[in-house]
Amino acid sequence: MSSINLKRLSQELGLSISSVSKALRDSYEISAETKKRVLEMAEKLNYQPNPFASSLRRKKSQSIAVVIPEIANNYFALAINGIQTVAQQKGYHVLTYLTHENSKDQDSTIKHLQGGRVDGVLISLCSDTANSQQLTDLQSAGFPVVFFDRIPDSPGCPTVSTDDFDGGFKATEQLIKTGCKKIAYLRVAGYLSTTENRMRGYLAALDRYNIPQNPKLIIECSNDDEQNQEIIKKALKMRGRPDGILSSVEKLAISTYYACGEINLKIPRDVKVISFSCLRTASLLSPSLSTITPPAFEIGKEAASLLFRMIEKKMFGNRVEKTVIKSVLIERNSSRK
Amino acid sequence: MSSINLKRLSQELGLSISSVSKALRDSYEISAETKKRVLEMAEKLNYQPNPFASSLRRKKSQSIAVVIPEIANNYFALAINGIQTVAQQKGYHVLTYLTHENSKDQDSTIKHLQGGRVDGVLISLCSDTANSQQLTDLQSAGFPVVFFDRIPDSPGCPTVSTDDFDGGFKATEQLIKTGCKKIAYLRVAGYLSTTENRMRGYLAALDRYNIPQNPKLIIECSNDDEQNQEIIKKALKMRGRPDGILSSVEKLAISTYYACGEINLKIPRDVKVISFSCLRTASLLSPSLSTITPPAFEIGKEAASLLFRMIEKKMFGNRVEKTVIKSVLIERNSSRK
Repeated sequence: MSSINLKRLSQELGLSISSVSKALRDSYEISAETKKRVLEMAEKLNYQPNPFASSLRRKKSQSIAVVIPEIANNYFALAINGIQTVAQQKGYHVLTYLTHENSKDQDSTIKHLQGGRVDGVLISLCSDTANSQQLTDLQSAGFPVVFFDRIPDSPGCPTVSTDDFDGGFKATEQLIKTGCKKIAYLRVAGYLSTTENRMRGYLAALDRYNIPQNPKLIIECSNDDEQNQEIIKKALKMRGRPDGILSSVEKLAISTYYACGEINLKIPRDVKVISFSCLRTASLLSPSLSTITPPAFEIGKEAASLLFRMIEKKMFGNRVEKTVIKSVLIERNSSRK
Repeated sequence: MSSINLKRLSQELGLSISSVSKALRDSYEISAETKKRVLEMAEKLNYQPNPFASSLRRKKSQSIAVVIPEIANNYFALAINGIQTVAQQKGYHVLTYLTHENSKDQDSTIKHLQGGRVDGVLISLCSDTANSQQLTDLQSAGFPVVFFDRIPDSPGCPTVSTDDFDGGFKATEQLIKTGCKKIAYLRVAGYLSTTENRMRGYLAALDRYNIPQNPKLIIECSNDDEQNQEIIKKALKMRGRPDGILSSVEKLAISTYYACGEINLKIPRDVKVISFSCLRTASLLSPSLSTITPPAFEIGKEAASLLFRMIEKKMFGNRVEKTVIKSVLIERNSSRK
């Protein structure tokens, strides 16, 4: 069956071309009912969006934006490499913006990006994102947005992430298998999908192995390294101190090493440590750090590919892609028996 | 003596207010001769720019931009913290842009920033900056620009940096004092003020201790970690291989650790290593890494303070501030006897 154009589709539906176009872009201006009708007809008649015509209509910036929350994290360096690989093939420019874990910076960046400076946005949310409404609105208005790594809960958003639950579960299981009975979970303040899902995995593993949950062992840290070292030191000095630590982000694992050094606890003899991390020096540390390593490069590549499918209108309607790529557990000396 | 305003100054000089204003901002539209006349008269009559009037004339963005070349480097994370400290006091927003060591990205970012999005720019140059003419032009046109860390050679630019020559000298001296006779210098490709000045310090230290320079020991690396590991491995296997390594950036020190591990050279027994670095894990590595640590936080703070003096017109004319803050040599196990 040959493909048809937008005009033919609008005639079949008895709707204006503009309304059909908006419905295909999942615009908030069109009712859910109409969208459904349009999509069904588009599928029936084998409608294929014409990316060339669409690029003529819209002034293209040939740029995409990457919005990330922090820089002292190798994860984002690797993810950006993955993004660049795809963008270069497409002849696109990548503009990177930092939000410094600050939702005001994030809001202002997004507002700025709506102005047509870029053709699409890849974003990893900052830890104090109260809600991602602004972003989902942007996306509903037909602007291509893909979330990666730290993603919103909203079901309507295209996302690329790792299986954080699975990573949290496996890391905890590894600590249990080496004999840990009092496993602490180090989390950062604020709400992040990654932190929450990793913690759910941690709790599920405790349940599976009949280890009672202890709220005192869920330790909330901040964005300040010195402060975190004190928080962790305090936790390691309390009665019934942890004999294993699962760190949800790499900077807290580094703080744990320093904290242990200060109070003369030996890793892994006195306390075993494992961390979500892409740290380049993980295997060079003394002792080498066991990690759950998210596939940062692949996540970046996949997120960029998805964004370009959206920019080039190779997908339409309310089909939402949610890609999940597993992390890898790498056992090193910090969690050995 | 009481201060006078722009109008009075222009009357005294027989020039238009606009010309005087441009001359004070060191605009390229005004001849050097006229600028000199204006500055002399301004000083004679004790002209003080009125920051309030100037802020009324110009629409202020209440934002400054920080443009940095890479993210997988703790130096920039710390420098940005320093910058934020000052910007917050001033009620300013900090927008951070990454150039990924790519001069095209750098050019496009600067072009964009000229559009009035920010009141001033702090920039650390990317390694393939062919020339920084665009930036110095921007600055001549009265737009506040401060260079930090990686600075241009041009004498007309306000800069905040560390004493790279001194750091290179001291690091090399330390290796010599622990018995090294064949000291390699690891440099990155392209032209960077930091790399060049650190190398000049290295060469000066060799001269001082009567160690002949050997071009084979100046090893040029790339921006690719895997490739660098191979380059360093090759250097460590050649006849007359280095017994000491001075790395000009931290990522090359990490590659050196991996390269040594692969070919079973022990640090510091077989080869001693020291690196310019703000790496948070330096003292946790096996062995702990000796570093020349640039005062990144202070450099950021100082650069931001200077930029705000320029934004608030608390300085004018062709006075150019060049601040240099020394780095600290921290001896750890990687360079011990």
